[in-house]
Amino acid sequence: MLEQIGQAAKNASYHIAQLSSTEKNQVLLTIADQLEADSHIILSANALDLVDARQNGMSEALLDRLLLNPLRLQGIASDVRQVCRLADPIGQIIDGGLLDNGLRIERRRVPLGVVGVIYEARPNVTVDVASLCLKTGNAAILRGGKETYRTNAATVQVIQRALAKHGLPKSAVQAIENPDRELVNQMLKLDRYIDMLIPRGGAALHKLCRENSTIPVITGGIGVCHIFVDESMEIEAALAIIVNAKKQRPGACNSLETLLVHRNVAGHFLAPFCARMAQEGIKLHADDNVIAQLRPGPATVSPVQNCEYREEWLSLDLNVKLVDDIDDAVAHIREYSTQHTDAILTRNIANAERFVTQVDSAAVFVNASTRFTDGGQFGLGAEVAVSTQKLHARGPMGLEALTTYKWVAFGQDLQRS
Amino acid sequence: MLEQIGQAAKNASYHIAQLSSTEKNQVLLTIADQLEADSHIILSANALDLVDARQNGMSEALLDRLLLNPLRLQGIASDVRQVCRLADPIGQIIDGGLLDNGLRIERRRVPLGVVGVIYEARPNVTVDVASLCLKTGNAAILRGGKETYRTNAATVQVIQRALAKHGLPKSAVQAIENPDRELVNQMLKLDRYIDMLIPRGGAALHKLCRENSTIPVITGGIGVCHIFVDESMEIEAALAIIVNAKKQRPGACNSLETLLVHRNVAGHFLAPFCARMAQEGIKLHADDNVIAQLRPGPATVSPVQNCEYREEWLSLDLNVKLVDDIDDAVAHIREYSTQHTDAILTRNIANAERFVTQVDSAAVFVNASTRFTDGGQFGLGAEVAVSTQKLHARGPMGLEALTTYKWVAFGQDLQRS
Repeated sequence: MLEQIGQAAKNASYHIAQLSSTEKNQVLLTIADQLEADSHIILSANALDLVDARQNGMSEALLDRLLLNPLRLQGIASDVRQVCRLADPIGQIIDGGLLDNGLRIERRRVPLGVVGVIYEARPNVTVDVASLCLKTGNAAILRGGKETYRTNAATVQVIQRALAKHGLPKSAVQAIENPDRELVNQMLKLDRYIDMLIPRGGAALHKLCRENSTIPVITGGIGVCHIFVDESMEIEAALAIIVNAKKQRPGACNSLETLLVHRNVAGHFLAPFCARMAQEGIKLHADDNVIAQLRPGPATVSPVQNCEYREEWLSLDLNVKLVDDIDDAVAHIREYSTQHTDAILTRNIANAERFVTQVDSAAVFVNASTRFTDGGQFGLGAEVAVSTQKLHARGPMGLEALTTYKWVAFGQDLQRS
Repeated sequence: MLEQIGQAAKNASYHIAQLSSTEKNQVLLTIADQLEADSHIILSANALDLVDARQNGMSEALLDRLLLNPLRLQGIASDVRQVCRLADPIGQIIDGGLLDNGLRIERRRVPLGVVGVIYEARPNVTVDVASLCLKTGNAAILRGGKETYRTNAATVQVIQRALAKHGLPKSAVQAIENPDRELVNQMLKLDRYIDMLIPRGGAALHKLCRENSTIPVITGGIGVCHIFVDESMEIEAALAIIVNAKKQRPGACNSLETLLVHRNVAGHFLAPFCARMAQEGIKLHADDNVIAQLRPGPATVSPVQNCEYREEWLSLDLNVKLVDDIDDAVAHIREYSTQHTDAILTRNIANAERFVTQVDSAAVFVNASTRFTDGGQFGLGAEVAVSTQKLHARGPMGLEALTTYKWVAFGQDLQRS
């Protein structure tokens, strides 16, 4: 079955790749309209998914993540219209010229072909990924979470109805509807048809893909982010950034997990820091070197396990550690960071440059909250995923990350000498 | 043991990444000098490898590929000096600007970190890869073929001696010397330390890496290349390009394997084609639709198996197939090409554009031999490998393919709103 889905997607991708920007934008507008016109189909499917999820004991927070209503569906449709307004990278000439051997050569930006996406419960991802893939001339194979398989199937059917209105193959956007987990393993081996695989979910999903996929995978989305408070930094300014990085959206991958404090400022930093964390409801986790200095309170402090430095809290919990100097901070980050986002707070220009040069992460900030690592904030217009690997795309991935290039060369009956 | 090699390489990579272009070039010049000064060490190790290889019944052609002599070693040293002259991509600002949110952001080109390379017998690859990695601030872990393990070990020792002269860690360039094949499997799992894996060898090696590596892999180097002779093409001009593409270096991945001929020109094309192939010593493989027209000779013709369309001959053998039109040609290429290089020979500008748009290969040529797909020919200065996948790098990979980027951003105590 997956073989057929793969082959159909590949065939559709050849078709979709030839569309002009205008044609692709028209299709996207029809999809947005169709999502609104057929909202009842998607909402009834979603209602059934919610009944099951509630019966299976899903938490209210997760149920809310699953829930679609007319307003949310309108928001999703409006996001699709927003994608129309983005510049189309396809067809761009990256570079080129006339070579000494007589070839006139150019690197043309072209679609990847077929993009596979494996994601967890959030049902808006279906439309999100489909629209970004279509915008860049790619076909998409979507595998959503089993909790929303009815919602995803209904959504893809609505998208396919819009495709059909433009005479385009339905197989340009397909969902793997059967919730059987074995199909994920099969999908990971479809390298003959799928050109790039994007897992969007937790660490276990990324690990599964990295270890089993024969398709090139973009891993990322896991953020053990650090802030280093250098000795030259003022306390109040540091606290404001720390609170923003930890608290603005603790469940996001770009939120702060570990604070590194220069030993020389600990004496006057830790007391106001502890007071502010208590006020903000942030619980601290600290090692033996600092726990005594934090224990007077008022913030809650627990001892930290070494393995906790490697994991996301995704909650109002924060590791605190003293470091001897900037090199010690960099060494900690190299050991425990997931290479997502790390920041230094400093007034020292040499330390700022040293930090951004030596920390090997997708995004490295000076005097800014880690929360800025985001496709929208970076001006990319859309975010396909956040990559924490180094090949192809690093950090927030915009439309360009859904493209590759092709060398096109013209000769006048040229032979190689 | 591999764990230690990996960790040492990662630590060295932090050091190497901070070197200036001038410092890196000085190291490369010392390596070139050291290769010449210590040539006896490398040549004696190579002599022992050759004795073993001959005892194991290696063919003269392969023995010659293995052989180093003073002249070849001088050539290798001179290639290293050539790498010094290339522009260093590290530190380049790809793009950036002041964002609406107040962040001053830039994408900086940085080294990948640690590059792993698995290659087969050719001993020059050791120096080649080491020098390109060092030029781009990367550490390298090299795993050469077991037939040359003494040569490779000696070569790496000489390189490490040069590194030490500059106070650089030896672990910036390491060889896995033990010829045990199980170590390759272990190497494929070192994703904690190795950032990119490049296999340089045959299809089986690429398959092994794609299926087992948890490190992002660049696959490529396998070229089932096509030329399509369109109906508007003149016979003599076509034959010259075909002979060049097939015969100039039949063992290369960019040499021609399958010729597709527009049915409408077959009548006057096949006879002179067959004569020319006989004259050039090229054996033909053809299906039922065309074999009768080729059988009068003088070229040797055998029936082609379908699976032979999928494999490289790497010899003076050529598949010939008639196609109904350009769409039929494109369909054959989509089915059988390894997405390396495909070419159209035509005088029709619309067909040329149609072909380059619809054929989904790393390089697509109009009126030029497939033999031009090469880093040197494309003006890249060096060639790390030829990628036939679509992520990160496609086609010939120059120094830029050994880099990634990092988002560096400066704020004035910025919080996300």
